[in-house]
Amino acid sequence: MNLKQHIEVMLPAIEKELQKQVSRLDADNTRHFHEMLTYHMGWTGEGAGREATGKRIRPLIVLLATASTGADWQPSLPAAAAVELVHNFSLVHDDVQDNSDKRRGRPTVWAKWGVPMAINVGDALFVISNQAMMDLIQTHPPSTVVEAAKILYDTCLSLTRGQYLDMSYEERNDLSLKDYWPMVGGKTSALLSACTQIGALLGNAGKEEQEAYRQFGYHLGLAFQVQDDILGIWGDEAITGKSTASDLVEGKNSLPVLYALGRQEKFAERWKRGPITAAEVREVAGLLDREGSKTYAQEIAERETQTALECLSKANPRGAAGESMLELANMLLKRDQ
Amino acid sequence: MNLKQHIEVMLPAIEKELQKQVSRLDADNTRHFHEMLTYHMGWTGEGAGREATGKRIRPLIVLLATASTGADWQPSLPAAAAVELVHNFSLVHDDVQDNSDKRRGRPTVWAKWGVPMAINVGDALFVISNQAMMDLIQTHPPSTVVEAAKILYDTCLSLTRGQYLDMSYEERNDLSLKDYWPMVGGKTSALLSACTQIGALLGNAGKEEQEAYRQFGYHLGLAFQVQDDILGIWGDEAITGKSTASDLVEGKNSLPVLYALGRQEKFAERWKRGPITAAEVREVAGLLDREGSKTYAQEIAERETQTALECLSKANPRGAAGESMLELANMLLKRDQ
Repeated sequence: MNLKQHIEVMLPAIEKELQKQVSRLDADNTRHFHEMLTYHMGWTGEGAGREATGKRIRPLIVLLATASTGADWQPSLPAAAAVELVHNFSLVHDDVQDNSDKRRGRPTVWAKWGVPMAINVGDALFVISNQAMMDLIQTHPPSTVVEAAKILYDTCLSLTRGQYLDMSYEERNDLSLKDYWPMVGGKTSALLSACTQIGALLGNAGKEEQEAYRQFGYHLGLAFQVQDDILGIWGDEAITGKSTASDLVEGKNSLPVLYALGRQEKFAERWKRGPITAAEVREVAGLLDREGSKTYAQEIAERETQTALECLSKANPRGAAGESMLELANMLLKRDQ
Repeated sequence: MNLKQHIEVMLPAIEKELQKQVSRLDADNTRHFHEMLTYHMGWTGEGAGREATGKRIRPLIVLLATASTGADWQPSLPAAAAVELVHNFSLVHDDVQDNSDKRRGRPTVWAKWGVPMAINVGDALFVISNQAMMDLIQTHPPSTVVEAAKILYDTCLSLTRGQYLDMSYEERNDLSLKDYWPMVGGKTSALLSACTQIGALLGNAGKEEQEAYRQFGYHLGLAFQVQDDILGIWGDEAITGKSTASDLVEGKNSLPVLYALGRQEKFAERWKRGPITAAEVREVAGLLDREGSKTYAQEIAERETQTALECLSKANPRGAAGESMLELANMLLKRDQ
């Protein structure tokens, strides 16, 4: 079984588990509320379908991690659903916080039903993720359930920390490279490390193996994030300057930006003068490149990628699932194997 | 030991446990974030102190329930903190949803730091409540921890249901009495029933006893809510009409209002014409009274009070803590013993 085949069997099972979890709200007097959740999850409403659901990378990683330890992946389904629900809870609240009215090409929950309802939809997704974790009791010893839940909740606190830092940076103009790691470590990386660690724990991996899986997820998240930051400035869509697709226009405190801010040269001067316009995007991206931001970010992406792959190798993933996990990592890191 | 003495020993222990839980965010780069939580909890900032913290009724009920089963209440402290954190998470988000800029006489979190930060503060309080529940593992068997957590999470989902109904009612004009119970059952009652049930569970009460405690909390919540609804219309502060203290001015879909809406007489006609002004409060309250709303609400409050006390008696609370629990119930129901 290769990655494609694993995805073909795992994805429908993930979707089914997610729908079962969310159906807790499917009652006569909360039907419309339930619809708000199923809309956000990509199952209902205009534009529903594969494009709208997202790739479900996180739950796939949970299941592949469990399978890579040599265990059955099916009993990990509630945990896989839980991490995906946490991810989606944070998206719904993020969209309110960032005032974003589009997500995956569709109107966001707040744009459709208003901010008060959207806050409640996010809260409900989070509550259901907690309930999903407790469903592990059907197939795992209670002590494992508590251990897995603790990992997820610690991660959730990291998410709120990362979110706080991200928002607080908007009001600061003394940022530099050192401010990047605590913010990004609390976002993508925290959740991915929870996915790999929980997956391994539920597969009955030993402490050392779990730790290797955790670190793999953590560095995978960092590498992925840095790469995303590079594409957000120098990717095809970003550089054309036709839209606001550039992170520069959005004012995002990404790694290349924070690197250059710390250098306090021409880019930093321009950044502090106010928003970058679409017309300036190509020029400012060039400035960043000349000040060494691109090279630096590429080095970091490469370093984190290497570390991630070393951790995965240390985790010693087994069988076809182990191969698929490596394939998935390489796919996320956009590398050829 | 009477209730006053129980409160004197339990309250400082609750406060200490809450502060310990919230201190998870007390780190160099999240100090300001931590301050937002300690401000909301009533410990810091202008107006900090007993007035700002609220009465901590919910955690007291958890501890008294445990003690009433004959067990030590100290090991229940993390659960007591967890329910209070859930309550406070819902307050922070409620204030955003209701656009309320004052709570317990102080500016609300969103009024001080904006909506995006307030959403994140609420999320963090909720995450920490989950972490607090898992801390029970230090003193309880893992299966009990999972059971207690399940009760709390089911309750949290009820809270989001109640909140959804409450918000959705604002757009409807076909409401009647039958719409009251699902809304109110998902709010005060749900959380109070979790307090009594979890308290009893942690005290090692049997299934039947736990169920009696749960029902006691549920009906206590209903009775308390209905009484609050009566005071919100006919209480001294509400009736003077000097301020917007009347639930009528706030447009709250309380029990007396829903009763009268179902009757479709003069009150219903006036209600549908738009907001009640402060000048009309006395007249409209009189109208409600003449249409039987006050008598009906009083009967329901009396019925729920009776049921609550019968359930408590069935739960057979023991010793001084049992006496204090009864005293607390009577205090909340504003009855002489």
